[in-house]
Amino acid sequence: MKEFFKVTDLETARAWPSIFPQMEKEVQPLDKVLGRVLGHDIHSDINLPDFPRAIMDGYAVKAVSTFGASDGNPAYLNVVDHIAMGTAPTKSIKPGEAAKISTGGMLPKGTDSVVMVEHTDAIDDITIEVYRSVAPGQHMIQIGEDLQANQVVLSKGQKLRPQEIGILAALGIEAVSVYRHPVVAILSTGDEIVAVTDTPEPGQIRDINSYTLAGQVIQAGCQPMVMGIVRDDFNALDHMCRAATEQADIIFVSGGSSVGMRDYTIEVLENLPDSEILAHGISISPGKPTILARVGQKFFCGLPGHVASAMVVFHMVVRPFLEYIGGRNPDFNRPRICYARLQRNLASKQGRVDCIRVRLLQEGDQLSAKPVLGKSGLIRTMIEADGLVCIDKNTEGLDKGSVVAVHLLPS
Amino acid sequence: MKEFFKVTDLETARAWPSIFPQMEKEVQPLDKVLGRVLGHDIHSDINLPDFPRAIMDGYAVKAVSTFGASDGNPAYLNVVDHIAMGTAPTKSIKPGEAAKISTGGMLPKGTDSVVMVEHTDAIDDITIEVYRSVAPGQHMIQIGEDLQANQVVLSKGQKLRPQEIGILAALGIEAVSVYRHPVVAILSTGDEIVAVTDTPEPGQIRDINSYTLAGQVIQAGCQPMVMGIVRDDFNALDHMCRAATEQADIIFVSGGSSVGMRDYTIEVLENLPDSEILAHGISISPGKPTILARVGQKFFCGLPGHVASAMVVFHMVVRPFLEYIGGRNPDFNRPRICYARLQRNLASKQGRVDCIRVRLLQEGDQLSAKPVLGKSGLIRTMIEADGLVCIDKNTEGLDKGSVVAVHLLPS
Repeated sequence: MKEFFKVTDLETARAWPSIFPQMEKEVQPLDKVLGRVLGHDIHSDINLPDFPRAIMDGYAVKAVSTFGASDGNPAYLNVVDHIAMGTAPTKSIKPGEAAKISTGGMLPKGTDSVVMVEHTDAIDDITIEVYRSVAPGQHMIQIGEDLQANQVVLSKGQKLRPQEIGILAALGIEAVSVYRHPVVAILSTGDEIVAVTDTPEPGQIRDINSYTLAGQVIQAGCQPMVMGIVRDDFNALDHMCRAATEQADIIFVSGGSSVGMRDYTIEVLENLPDSEILAHGISISPGKPTILARVGQKFFCGLPGHVASAMVVFHMVVRPFLEYIGGRNPDFNRPRICYARLQRNLASKQGRVDCIRVRLLQEGDQLSAKPVLGKSGLIRTMIEADGLVCIDKNTEGLDKGSVVAVHLLPS
Repeated sequence: MKEFFKVTDLETARAWPSIFPQMEKEVQPLDKVLGRVLGHDIHSDINLPDFPRAIMDGYAVKAVSTFGASDGNPAYLNVVDHIAMGTAPTKSIKPGEAAKISTGGMLPKGTDSVVMVEHTDAIDDITIEVYRSVAPGQHMIQIGEDLQANQVVLSKGQKLRPQEIGILAALGIEAVSVYRHPVVAILSTGDEIVAVTDTPEPGQIRDINSYTLAGQVIQAGCQPMVMGIVRDDFNALDHMCRAATEQADIIFVSGGSSVGMRDYTIEVLENLPDSEILAHGISISPGKPTILARVGQKFFCGLPGHVASAMVVFHMVVRPFLEYIGGRNPDFNRPRICYARLQRNLASKQGRVDCIRVRLLQEGDQLSAKPVLGKSGLIRTMIEADGLVCIDKNTEGLDKGSVVAVHLLPS
């Protein structure tokens, strides 16, 4: 049991996810991989397209046959073939000739462009007038114009959106290796917490964190395993944490992590085999009483009991751990920040990062960020919020009207 | 069969979703409603919290007992009670007295604030020194400070994020009415299209749109029903469209929607009972050859065959239909636009909305939007893109360095 027992700053904590191993991989069919993380680089083994392809309805031609064509001086071409969709044309086209073609059709030999049907008139069954010249390559896609063979198309650690799945389909990849979803055990501690199904007595409140954290865990690409409420009792918490460590890849304990009277979480952690406390407290507000730890090879996180604190800490500190463990390479993350004009002054205490919940409003041609006021125990503040404005530990505050970065909460 | 047969502008098309009925509702438990759309307004039947609650570890006091307290002149208070978590205190606290309390504990009668334990010293078992004065209401949450009873907490048509599910849990709502996922039938047409499992012959390409559209359908809160590839044949398409109309709530046909040689989609539509073509063509690029129609009470959409065109049209035109039918009230949509500085000039054709795929790059304290170049048949352009910059039909182009709105693609 190595101990640090000190408040850690956000930058230090952000370097830690990579001390944990990433999940094993599993092969899944394409219709099951939306939002999953790719397990290895994907190379193209073919050109895409692998034939010259029309992207307009019209006539495949050699561009020179149309040079100089205009309304007043049309070019006359002989239509010598009709290209059927999905087949390779057999006839070669000479200058002065054309082959009728539809969008998606394969250009015949001798052609390098497509004249749009709108720019032609059929004189008779075999002759057309062309009113517009085309350039070589126009209204068609060249071989390999989308993708060249032997190219890295997608990268290990990249999250799969519809378009990435589309490119896998284009390459004929029916199933792909993705990282397994990390399973996150969620424990709620506190003698004042009752289940949602119970009616709280005076002094009791219902368990909210199990639900908010489970939702955030899913949004981070993991699978929640809600283990319920644990009493403020060393043995009960120790028992549940051991069970969680056996069954899950990641362990969350919410509540009971302040340096206060009920601090069994640290005691239980110290008692678990091969445990190491990375941080007891993070210089962030809300969310200071956060514990980051390692139990064996598993990530263990003590989250604040206050619901908004726990959600903010999850978003700013914990999520990168879950994503990394789930295989994500942050280099491939899409932007999750927008910029907005601050609607009022924000004061901040130095020495910590202040995370202010804000609502984004579209005002004319810009976004403005309206701070949501209210204590960190209030879930209402998270309902109103679209994102977080973080005031650096060395900054005393932000001025009304300044443009600030907003960390977007998943919507 | 009413016909319009004309190119419609984007604004007109955007008014149409509400002509379709919304889905029926179903009751689902809280752990199944992430991302679902709420079926009715939620009213609070309780105050939250419904007792005055400590948000720090320390001592519950009447604030006046601490007024004037400082390091040099501490206040001395008698500790007359220890509040157990999750119970209602029995003893009333007088001025000059204090009750030991933990975060989340219920303040006893006679108290209105909490002194943080860090600002006290225990002299003996029953006396503390207080070094800091507190204001009434400090370090506690008042009854109803989070939520007042009989308030509208969440609204019908609102998408449920983790925090909205949290507030439902707080109110003891174990299961909630949400709109059923609309089922979207997806048909791919074209004699050149082969299944992902097949090796394309010259002139053939694999079916990509079934995969990209299925992913986008899921992202829009719907359930895809991939029906496969249909040959360019009136009877085959008619048969499949009738089957789709029976089995699904929404019907997508991709490919075969240009005003070209293979235009069976319009013919099939005209042949379906109680059908109405709302738009044949939309003044948007890419994506002009889009069909929007009604078949009975169901939304029917013909999407372009080009993969990037289909994805852009989905994002800008079709998604609002799916979301509306799925119960969403757009008034509650979170912002989906960010602003970024354009990295190069963009020319645009007047009379249509040009949607330019852009990649977002963080450059110092701002986002910049880098246009992704490439034809609309290229899926690579969508892989590179984070969003779309739309150039209005009355605008000739956008200047390098100007700040532009970026419609964010789901990440």
